[in-house]
Amino acid sequence: MQDLSSTEVYSLSILSVACIAILVNAWNSDGEPLFASLAISGAAFSFTYAVIRWTGDVFIKRGYKGKDLSKKSPVELPEAMGLISALVYLLAVVNFLPFAFKRDIVEATSGGGNKDRVLEAGMDDTGRFLHRFPLEKLASYGFAYGTLATTTILGILDDSFDMRWRHKFFIPAFAALPMLGLYFVDFGVTHVVVPLPLRPYLGELIDLGGFYYLYMAAVAIFCPNCINILAGVNGIEVGQSLVIALLLLLNDFLYVSPWMHQPHPATDSHLFSIYLLLPFVGVSLALLSHNWFPARVFVGDTYCYFAGMVFAVVGILGHFSKTLMLLFIPQIFNFLYSAPQLFKVVPCPRHRLPRFNARTGLLEPSVATFSEEKPLRPIVGEVLKVLHELRMLRVETNEKGRVTQCSNFTILNLWLVWRGPLREDRLATEILVMQTLCGLLGLWMRHSLALLLFSQDNRF
Amino acid sequence: MQDLSSTEVYSLSILSVACIAILVNAWNSDGEPLFASLAISGAAFSFTYAVIRWTGDVFIKRGYKGKDLSKKSPVELPEAMGLISALVYLLAVVNFLPFAFKRDIVEATSGGGNKDRVLEAGMDDTGRFLHRFPLEKLASYGFAYGTLATTTILGILDDSFDMRWRHKFFIPAFAALPMLGLYFVDFGVTHVVVPLPLRPYLGELIDLGGFYYLYMAAVAIFCPNCINILAGVNGIEVGQSLVIALLLLLNDFLYVSPWMHQPHPATDSHLFSIYLLLPFVGVSLALLSHNWFPARVFVGDTYCYFAGMVFAVVGILGHFSKTLMLLFIPQIFNFLYSAPQLFKVVPCPRHRLPRFNARTGLLEPSVATFSEEKPLRPIVGEVLKVLHELRMLRVETNEKGRVTQCSNFTILNLWLVWRGPLREDRLATEILVMQTLCGLLGLWMRHSLALLLFSQDNRF
Repeated sequence: MQDLSSTEVYSLSILSVACIAILVNAWNSDGEPLFASLAISGAAFSFTYAVIRWTGDVFIKRGYKGKDLSKKSPVELPEAMGLISALVYLLAVVNFLPFAFKRDIVEATSGGGNKDRVLEAGMDDTGRFLHRFPLEKLASYGFAYGTLATTTILGILDDSFDMRWRHKFFIPAFAALPMLGLYFVDFGVTHVVVPLPLRPYLGELIDLGGFYYLYMAAVAIFCPNCINILAGVNGIEVGQSLVIALLLLLNDFLYVSPWMHQPHPATDSHLFSIYLLLPFVGVSLALLSHNWFPARVFVGDTYCYFAGMVFAVVGILGHFSKTLMLLFIPQIFNFLYSAPQLFKVVPCPRHRLPRFNARTGLLEPSVATFSEEKPLRPIVGEVLKVLHELRMLRVETNEKGRVTQCSNFTILNLWLVWRGPLREDRLATEILVMQTLCGLLGLWMRHSLALLLFSQDNRF
Repeated sequence: MQDLSSTEVYSLSILSVACIAILVNAWNSDGEPLFASLAISGAAFSFTYAVIRWTGDVFIKRGYKGKDLSKKSPVELPEAMGLISALVYLLAVVNFLPFAFKRDIVEATSGGGNKDRVLEAGMDDTGRFLHRFPLEKLASYGFAYGTLATTTILGILDDSFDMRWRHKFFIPAFAALPMLGLYFVDFGVTHVVVPLPLRPYLGELIDLGGFYYLYMAAVAIFCPNCINILAGVNGIEVGQSLVIALLLLLNDFLYVSPWMHQPHPATDSHLFSIYLLLPFVGVSLALLSHNWFPARVFVGDTYCYFAGMVFAVVGILGHFSKTLMLLFIPQIFNFLYSAPQLFKVVPCPRHRLPRFNARTGLLEPSVATFSEEKPLRPIVGEVLKVLHELRMLRVETNEKGRVTQCSNFTILNLWLVWRGPLREDRLATEILVMQTLCGLLGLWMRHSLALLLFSQDNRF
């Protein structure tokens, strides 16, 4: 497991050398942050790929391991390997720093160890098309880093101490504190634009005050947790995160592309987002190539929290958290659909991942069973039967019409109810395609239908 | 172990309530960062104290445990509990953020989610005596947080994966990258003031360029590692860190006290240092009360790295790394004195902590023995004998005059050579007193003798 094949060594070396060459070039020509970010992301991919391979055995030895139950002959695989992705990501983000700000670096300083800020006039008018962002973003960058590092710490603790669900749920809120603190100190904007139909009653802007912080905390809790609960199939945690990241990048490029009307007030926020997302794509691709069916490593809660928090950070500090939510439609659906089991209205088994049928090699919906001793409340049973009629669930009843079992309430099981048994990679692929289509629809709504609700799209 | 006594519950509750009251007051009167920082540090003490008690068993259960070999009947104690201190510290630093910057918060913003910086004229002239620091420090604060969070991650990895010495040594350099990146982007000062005697040759200022970054990286590697190697006796890791922190605070207060000539150009840097050190003192005191003789918990490498990095961060970002080094005199001595064993000139046993004599209950110097098969090189033996004559080592020789054993090369063993066998807490206390005296001497040198080398002390 731990050795790279010679083809892999060769490819990764070529990639790394190319990336380093681009970085050297970028440095000599004034930073060039966008190329530098791409190159650093490429290098991060190589490094993550190799380190995951090298350290897998160490993880197993220290007890971070698990069996893949959806295979004919389950072997022990290293668990929590998303930690490597998170660490390399943090390293990449730090190393990008000098490139991001090279043009803005203030060289004149006073002798006593204190800096004088030399503000260049017209700094904002030039260089916009070269995708640099100004020094004011530095604090955001630092706190984004701090938030993600804290998320990583708490992810490790979760993976090594097996926390209880009710503690785990709030982990991201703790990790998001640096970001919320920064938001409070540096932006402090708690006004939101009111949709047109409501303006006669509420005015054009409404100040949500403290509620806006609750909203941001909710986003920060929601993103990591909902990635964490849409899980259980090889590659699905990393795959869904990559889809979201790529769609966010697509949206960002709409704002920074040179053929758009420039300078645009939101350009800096979207550059910030691009620079945080590109290395995320790099480290996630490396992880996916080990976690895709048949998985050789598991990603762990660390990765899910970390990925979710990357999205929360770019959405909140980039001021497009509503757009972000449009890219989480399948996750939101999954969360709402899961709610009856999460809140124990319907009994919830320990694991709800699809059931592996060793005879066919395919995945089938897993089920919750309701015994004679602990039957469902009749009203709940009736609702489940209606859901069955609507093809939103598969229910089995006994001869008396009592519900004896139902498929578990996750989008993965529902998909299997709709599509019939599928091989694991087929299921993951279909879910990711569905997610991509939902996301594209969301972005389209954001940029066209939004004009019906708001008087202008901030893209123009 | 895990329950707090009713006296403890009572005292911690009183303290917490008092701290929260101070915080509420501070918030209502414009921030008052110094009081807020004190109150947050008090609350951090209470919280750390309680959480260490509550989670000790969980740590043991997860395999973070060790035996205290310097006791008559060693029991298993939780290891790596410094992690709790580090986590509470990070939480405290984040919660302080709104208080630090409240006065500077920019409330006017444009509608599109982008902030306008409203720079108030004369911001620097008012409020200096109220110990606020301006918004420009925000990025430093964020990257300091990021550096310490990264240090915590790497500390956890070290404590859970038992890294090799040659990997461990460079951990702090990785963790220090965010800080060095920030320094590069935001300050970029690589000039140092040349001491008077050298000025005819070098000029008044000399630009160290890239070497200055190497110097900072060296400081960041040195501080955590030298706290980590001056260890092995109950309370010594936390105790020495507290002594350094308190001496740094003493130095900081020289710059910010209202009876000094104000405004002083270095005031902001020292406020920054105070705000980072006060909560450190809070969480360390709580840890020390569990780690002091007879220890109920061990602190782990996490704490040593974390503590050292706190000092490196305040020293580097506060621009007083040379002063910082003056407070590390005993650690520097210990490192140099250890060098013959660290670099294998003299054979080094696995553990070098003082040997516990179960009969007397006292600690004695531990020894390295040199067998007939693997004797010392003759020249090394001769040097050891000279050191013995100078009372810098205890050496035993056989009838032929060949060195058969010597005390291990650590300051703790040397102290026992000088003072004779001591009880564990007595040894720790004496070392800490010695360290305090060295530190005070260092600070005195800094503020008086420095005038002989430099034309002015930046304090005036």
